Amino acid sequence: MKKLLIASTSTVHGKGYLEYILPELSNLFFGIKEILFIPYARPSGLSHEAYTEKAKAAFEKINIKVKGIHEFNNPIDAINNAKGIFTGGGNTFLLVKQLYDTKVISAIKNVVENGIPYFGTSAGSNITGLTIQNTNDMPIIYPPSFNVFGFINFNINPHYLDPDPTSTHMGETRETRINEFHTLNKIPVLGLREGSWISVKGNSVVLKGALDARLFQQGKPAKELPPDTDLSFLM
Amino acid sequence: MKKLLIASTSTVHGKGYLEYILPELSNLFFGIKEILFIPYARPSGLSHEAYTEKAKAAFEKINIKVKGIHEFNNPIDAINNAKGIFTGGGNTFLLVKQLYDTKVISAIKNVVENGIPYFGTSAGSNITGLTIQNTNDMPIIYPPSFNVFGFINFNINPHYLDPDPTSTHMGETRETRINEFHTLNKIPVLGLREGSWISVKGNSVVLKGALDARLFQQGKPAKELPPDTDLSFLM
Repeated sequence: MKKLLIASTSTVHGKGYLEYILPELSNLFFGIKEILFIPYARPSGLSHEAYTEKAKAAFEKINIKVKGIHEFNNPIDAINNAKGIFTGGGNTFLLVKQLYDTKVISAIKNVVENGIPYFGTSAGSNITGLTIQNTNDMPIIYPPSFNVFGFINFNINPHYLDPDPTSTHMGETRETRINEFHTLNKIPVLGLREGSWISVKGNSVVLKGALDARLFQQGKPAKELPPDTDLSFLM
Repeated sequence: MKKLLIASTSTVHGKGYLEYILPELSNLFFGIKEILFIPYARPSGLSHEAYTEKAKAAFEKINIKVKGIHEFNNPIDAINNAKGIFTGGGNTFLLVKQLYDTKVISAIKNVVENGIPYFGTSAGSNITGLTIQNTNDMPIIYPPSFNVFGFINFNINPHYLDPDPTSTHMGETRETRINEFHTLNKIPVLGLREGSWISVKGNSVVLKGALDARLFQQGKPAKELPPDTDLSFLM
């Protein structure tokens, strides 16, 4: 049974790294002593080592060990032997480029489809959708494709941000950008506000956290979905 | 002699489309009766026709006619016969995909290098740099490359936005995103605030408008540049 926790953000304002989501992670990784961390998205250019240390420190609080994929000689073996996987946020383009270059993309897809629990934040959540076309990141590197895992049958816009009605800035709002996407693409997009996540357990796909999420579908007005909405109608 | 006007935005708050920049456009296109408009970036999914109408209405005020590239049977001929070129803003990925698909990219490069005046706003400015890797846009379509004209020897971040010190949002600031770019790339990036533009005349490259621009270079602290700064040191 597929088990995923797809989070908008690693960190909510005023709390430590992963702090708000630790109880959920205890459930997702129940009975698992060590998980594999994918640090490829390198937020602010952080090294694989430093990023993995950060993940280690957070998971220590729930007694789970963390090993970075860069610590293994063979990253595909590392995935095939993993009991749980966490992909951290950072730059989505860099993450996807690395997933393709290291050829781990199909290995991850395979183990997660077969029940290895997966946790993603931000860029690590973008890649659980069908494509990375709703990332907020700058295209700092050219990936071989925008197609990713498709564990869910829609795309994620993490860190979803409502328009600021007082703004005089003429750049596009997040909603305008997603609507532009829908002039060319049919894939539904879920705008996940910081502090929201999606819980996937087999065929059950549910919006979690205290906030509404905003659903964008081609040719339909955007819709606010309350917490605990069953999202399986999108699958 | 190369002549370009590379603007951060088409529209500043409280003014009409292109209104703030019309006097400059009268100079750039001095003596020219008709220019060619490239509507490929399609802001908000606007049709080529509707977008061209918008450009026409603005340029009418300075007695310049506008024809959209889609109105010609052969877009490459249209470029080779153009007396001036304006590329409007919208989605940079879509713009670049269309420039490659229609094969006009080398034709535009050639005529502009040979002195046909070029005006770009937002996405139309992003493509004057070396790559589109500092666009703010969503990757709504996969382009065959991120490489573009390189009329200037650096990249543009249009609609440059300063961090909001009161924000509790955990998504990356614009500065963080550009710094992430510099963990992988050497190309300097100029953050152009709305209302700023770059004037290129042969070897002269000057920051114009009332606002400072923010220059990002790999391995150096970001720097505020005042209006009228000579940018030729970046070339």
